[in-house]
Amino acid sequence: MTEIDEREQGKVFQPRFDAAGLITAVAVDSRTREILMLAHMNAQALAMTRETGLAHFYSRSRQRLWLKGESSGNVLRVEEIRVDCDQDALVLLVQPDGPACHTGARSCFYRVVGADGLAPIAD
Amino acid sequence: MTEIDEREQGKVFQPRFDAAGLITAVAVDSRTREILMLAHMNAQALAMTRETGLAHFYSRSRQRLWLKGESSGNVLRVEEIRVDCDQDALVLLVQPDGPACHTGARSCFYRVVGADGLAPIAD
Repeated sequence: MTEIDEREQGKVFQPRFDAAGLITAVAVDSRTREILMLAHMNAQALAMTRETGLAHFYSRSRQRLWLKGESSGNVLRVEEIRVDCDQDALVLLVQPDGPACHTGARSCFYRVVGADGLAPIAD
Repeated sequence: MTEIDEREQGKVFQPRFDAAGLITAVAVDSRTREILMLAHMNAQALAMTRETGLAHFYSRSRQRLWLKGESSGNVLRVEEIRVDCDQDALVLLVQPDGPACHTGARSCFYRVVGADGLAPIAD
């Protein structure tokens, strides 16, 4: 197998962190399939997530590891982690304890981009 | 409204491109809600997507704009664009013309991360 075949078809998990040491992770409600949030993980956040079953991320603005829900209590219980073809993005299938967004919304994606600006999503 | 309130609750679309001029976009099948792929857009890719209704991205490795499906024919027809709370990530609700992944898989996320490595997803 070539290196690319191995990465795309192999059984070895070799997450590709970017130049800043981060990989993008998308959290999805495992029951409703709603996309809840998008955030970044460094190697430690990924390891902590796998170890504890609770989603951990790395905050680029605060430059530190955080447990999602550490202050709000709204943790994300990770049931499954999926990786994409070139292993530079993750999907987390989660069971959310409460709203995933810090605004109190169920999902961070609560607005639609329209021709005249943003509007609340219909569903 | 403060600047943060305006960004989080306002009606003005003000996408936050990162230092490299990119914003992350997640393409989701509008019918099945399956996450198909994750990629990046620069301002031009976003404008072309909104103009044509077909998903355009910016390839970091090839350093150029690309129409998803330009060679395979497997375009993504964009029905809705959603933006997250701090406007640095997008969700595209799409109708895919064929497999979204260049490997031929329906979604790029075809493997689960397990304790012993990667395995095909169950569904």
